[in-house]
Amino acid sequence: MATYATLNELFSHRVESPTIRRLLLAGVDAFWRDGFHASSTRDIAKRAQRSPAAVYVHFKAKEDLLFDIIRYLAEYLLDRLRESAAEGGDPTEMLSRLVHAYVALPARTYKASLVANREFWSLTAAQQKQVVKIRDELEEIVGNCLAAGKASGEFDFKDLSITRMAVVSLCRSTLLWYSPRGRLTPEQLGDEYVHLVLGMVRAKAIDDVAEEPVRARAAG
Amino acid sequence: MATYATLNELFSHRVESPTIRRLLLAGVDAFWRDGFHASSTRDIAKRAQRSPAAVYVHFKAKEDLLFDIIRYLAEYLLDRLRESAAEGGDPTEMLSRLVHAYVALPARTYKASLVANREFWSLTAAQQKQVVKIRDELEEIVGNCLAAGKASGEFDFKDLSITRMAVVSLCRSTLLWYSPRGRLTPEQLGDEYVHLVLGMVRAKAIDDVAEEPVRARAAG
Repeated sequence: MATYATLNELFSHRVESPTIRRLLLAGVDAFWRDGFHASSTRDIAKRAQRSPAAVYVHFKAKEDLLFDIIRYLAEYLLDRLRESAAEGGDPTEMLSRLVHAYVALPARTYKASLVANREFWSLTAAQQKQVVKIRDELEEIVGNCLAAGKASGEFDFKDLSITRMAVVSLCRSTLLWYSPRGRLTPEQLGDEYVHLVLGMVRAKAIDDVAEEPVRARAAG
Repeated sequence: MATYATLNELFSHRVESPTIRRLLLAGVDAFWRDGFHASSTRDIAKRAQRSPAAVYVHFKAKEDLLFDIIRYLAEYLLDRLRESAAEGGDPTEMLSRLVHAYVALPARTYKASLVANREFWSLTAAQQKQVVKIRDELEEIVGNCLAAGKASGEFDFKDLSITRMAVVSLCRSTLLWYSPRGRLTPEQLGDEYVHLVLGMVRAKAIDDVAEEPVRARAAG
């Protein structure tokens, strides 16, 4: 699975222009530090060691820069979840991989993901709609896996759509409190959440599945 | 348990002045519709059918109005959770009541709670700190209950602090997707989440506990 350790690597696979990448990274720093509304195009240009005019060449408005940050992160996560789903295995294995990715990947690009969460409402309505479309696809992948597990008898839960929203929003909510300076790495956090979610859906044979870290299994 | 059906009732128990209550309600509407940054003091005054000067008499800055909205909601939830914890019973019963309140109460004051969540970062640093202090107390109540359940052998989870954060952020995250126009009432949503969280902590005798709605038990 292609995972990137840094935001720069992630952007490298989406954007060819080094200037645009620099501006995106500077935008993340500025929005993270001062918030979207308090950050000026000039701040961003300065952080990127470019002129304000250079920003306007690539981004008509500050919102467009924010949108690209949020969109690239969401698309990256979607690509990884699609790959996870395509790897097959039983629903318990698949759900473990999905939850692990959904928790660990945003934690790895913590600063940018937090900006994306915090500043979602600063996007234009049309931009929000596009991001919601990607999120819907993420939810659908998780929902399909849950439905498969219920059908096979591996999972036991009452309501598919509530459980899907609970799993997805639980994974997403780690950003509300996760700190890269805390005692857990993104991967360890992912393992903990896999265990919690398997309990939530009352997965059978929980202990056999959850003891072994996801990455170890994936590598084996 | 004293619960309020409407935001107006909730504010009535915190604020004596009808003008201030009107301004708080108008603030919720304005921030909900246009966001904190795009809402002017004039908009809020107009919605409350007061003059802009009337706003400044009571709130030095727009942030102060937002802060009171967020603070009253958080304090209200804290009071209810304290009451729930004081009702006693075994940890499974207590956790059920806590989760139910943590999900149902914000859903009942949906609009204001969503504003509180969205606009938290618009508060001043000192205000954020005060809100975080209340949230820490909420987390502590949940954490104590989880620890009691682990000690009694009713719950089975790996890491107390991770599980506490997961339970709390799961409850809080309902606002990210809950709609009062959806098919579930706040109480039904609470019941669903009780069931999910009891699974998460692998509560013993789950089926006996989760079949019966929390409110019915509390009333009995």
